[in-house]
Amino acid sequence: MSSQAAIKRIRGLHRKKERISSGLAIAQGGKLVRELLESDMSLIELHVRADQQELLQGLTGVDMDIANQEELDKMATMQTGVSAVAVFEQPDYGALLPEEGEVYLACDAVADPGNLGTIIRSAENFGITGVVLGLETVDLFNPKCVQATMGSLFRVPTFRMDLFELNAVDVSIYKAELEGQSLYDVEMGSPAIVVVGNETHGVTEEFKEATAITIPITGDAESLNVGMAATVIAAELYRRELS
Amino acid sequence: MSSQAAIKRIRGLHRKKERISSGLAIAQGGKLVRELLESDMSLIELHVRADQQELLQGLTGVDMDIANQEELDKMATMQTGVSAVAVFEQPDYGALLPEEGEVYLACDAVADPGNLGTIIRSAENFGITGVVLGLETVDLFNPKCVQATMGSLFRVPTFRMDLFELNAVDVSIYKAELEGQSLYDVEMGSPAIVVVGNETHGVTEEFKEATAITIPITGDAESLNVGMAATVIAAELYRRELS
Repeated sequence: MSSQAAIKRIRGLHRKKERISSGLAIAQGGKLVRELLESDMSLIELHVRADQQELLQGLTGVDMDIANQEELDKMATMQTGVSAVAVFEQPDYGALLPEEGEVYLACDAVADPGNLGTIIRSAENFGITGVVLGLETVDLFNPKCVQATMGSLFRVPTFRMDLFELNAVDVSIYKAELEGQSLYDVEMGSPAIVVVGNETHGVTEEFKEATAITIPITGDAESLNVGMAATVIAAELYRRELS
Repeated sequence: MSSQAAIKRIRGLHRKKERISSGLAIAQGGKLVRELLESDMSLIELHVRADQQELLQGLTGVDMDIANQEELDKMATMQTGVSAVAVFEQPDYGALLPEEGEVYLACDAVADPGNLGTIIRSAENFGITGVVLGLETVDLFNPKCVQATMGSLFRVPTFRMDLFELNAVDVSIYKAELEGQSLYDVEMGSPAIVVVGNETHGVTEEFKEATAITIPITGDAESLNVGMAATVIAAELYRRELS
């Protein structure tokens, strides 16, 4: 059984303010909690349904218990019926910048947590070394974002910074825009950063010197959303690496 | 002002059963409603906030009015503050199959409406001619799916059928799987259909004869979700078309 205090503490982490002040975040659902346990993240607290109690095996120094469904539902943000809820420490990778041969993605004011989650997941899938998050980008530890990464969040290095500072670093900067050089024609420098922008406003003025690249699409279509755009760019860069 | 009867009628369309029996669906938000008005869809009913009343200009034969925010919020499924809600007829493209030079996507038991929306949007962006939906695939007119297509739903031909029947048609069938020939090495026949599967179970047994193709990803990663996978496949096919 989980205490009322635990439920209250975890519900507090639904709020960004509380996540920032505590440096903690939550992961929900048996699948995601398994990914968390297999990662290098620091686990603080774990509440599981009786049928998932094998998750507790071998853990030490963790505040853990068997919870009933009602308690878990109170801890969860998104769906009813989750079998596990965990609290983990937000990782601190320090200041990150790409080195020779590496490509980073930079998220400039990405607003939707689902899109940010897709970006992190694509970064891992396609060998992007790290993701930097602009100050205006949605909280990476927003529960919707954590879920959308499907665990990639636990493995991809991330770093929040004022992206304007990238302009002072010796790195080739590209930005995904509606108009620019075709993704398929651009020769990337190294190290490189590809900036993706806000869902409505695109990449900010701060990157006016960066090389604009565009994903060719058919004439009539609305543009891709930022999660899809980052996925296509990362897949193309990985395709080149393979060939 | 919108009548209580209109609100009730539109709220009925939040339910799949009602959408199927009526053949109608809803679009929400000024941006999406604009896309609807510019498309070939049959508009049945339109409720807009006073500041969006230019949307009503030039319309005939449509049940329309100026609604207040409270009324619109009652009609909407997903967010508060939508400025327009429209009812449209679900399009009937008849039986669709790809012809020489065309590629279709087929959705075999895609369960998440957001993923299906992403697939439809990518289909339009990357010149896929049509999308066939297996009987087990989520309702295309689920409001979450309609929103996720960002309007592509109004322009991409779709057809729901028993996908097993594709095996009797003279068309090259490929299926996206975790293991198979690399997407980048496969030479596609024509016409072609690429089947994407359920989020958990993949493509069903029915396509055991189809050529399995896979998107190369790095070793440790979880696989892409089905929306991302369809996006990468469609983008790659369009890249080939351009080169």
